[in-house]
Amino acid sequence: MTKRVLGIDPGLLHTGWAIVDTAGQTRKYVASGVILPPAKLPLSERLAIIFRGVNELCETFSPNECSIEITFVNKNPQTTLLLGHARAAAIVAVANKNIPVFEYEPNKIKKALTGAGHADKSAIDKMVKILLPAARPKTADEADAIAIALAHTNMFRI
Amino acid sequence: MTKRVLGIDPGLLHTGWAIVDTAGQTRKYVASGVILPPAKLPLSERLAIIFRGVNELCETFSPNECSIEITFVNKNPQTTLLLGHARAAAIVAVANKNIPVFEYEPNKIKKALTGAGHADKSAIDKMVKILLPAARPKTADEADAIAIALAHTNMFRI
Repeated sequence: MTKRVLGIDPGLLHTGWAIVDTAGQTRKYVASGVILPPAKLPLSERLAIIFRGVNELCETFSPNECSIEITFVNKNPQTTLLLGHARAAAIVAVANKNIPVFEYEPNKIKKALTGAGHADKSAIDKMVKILLPAARPKTADEADAIAIALAHTNMFRI
Repeated sequence: MTKRVLGIDPGLLHTGWAIVDTAGQTRKYVASGVILPPAKLPLSERLAIIFRGVNELCETFSPNECSIEITFVNKNPQTTLLLGHARAAAIVAVANKNIPVFEYEPNKIKKALTGAGHADKSAIDKMVKILLPAARPKTADEADAIAIALAHTNMFRI
């Protein structure tokens, strides 16, 4: 049975997304892109754009599960707080459709993809290319969303 | 012309809400309550419960504007991050209905209600009782939501 995964890399300015199908040992790239809320809009309207974008993805692609990174507070807590808002807008759109949301720590995602929890960006990009040659991400946010979806499909095979 | 304001005091465990009508010098208490997402549910489902709750309030009461506090990072940034998630779930529900969201710093809300930016809780409770004698909040979250709605109606009279 094929399972369809929606990977999300949330952000107030760029929210990357990817759809990956998986069945047993196989994985198939379906689509990916970026939601771009204009920076000049108030926070509430940018959040609504992320919500509507992810809601539309759920309606268009009917994913079975969603994969998203856990956010930790970093050196700039105020920026992390804004990221948390964007993340919640995306999560709410998925959970409101009763699609299960799986949250992973960043190093778990790296480990599921490369075997190493501290793998660098190029190691991850390499694995994404090997596992999903059809994916041609145009931006870093899109590439990250593909990696997050892919990690979830691996997580359930380990 | 009467303007209807939805005040929200967001929280992952308790999201207080209040509906206050205002026309010129008058204000009228309409309703208030608390959305209580069960703590045992995963984050995504708790956020969906806040979203659906606020969405239903918008459909039931058709507010013209929404008033909500700005969250700042405090001593516990991880808790603030979770609060940011709850706050975004509420904001998204309102903004998705194209209802304008007004965000206020906590001391602006205190000042709009009592004239002092550092007023204590009892001074705020007193002003709420004077301005809206019909309001009988049963919890602190409900009382805070009433104060937030009321502050917004005052903000536009100052």
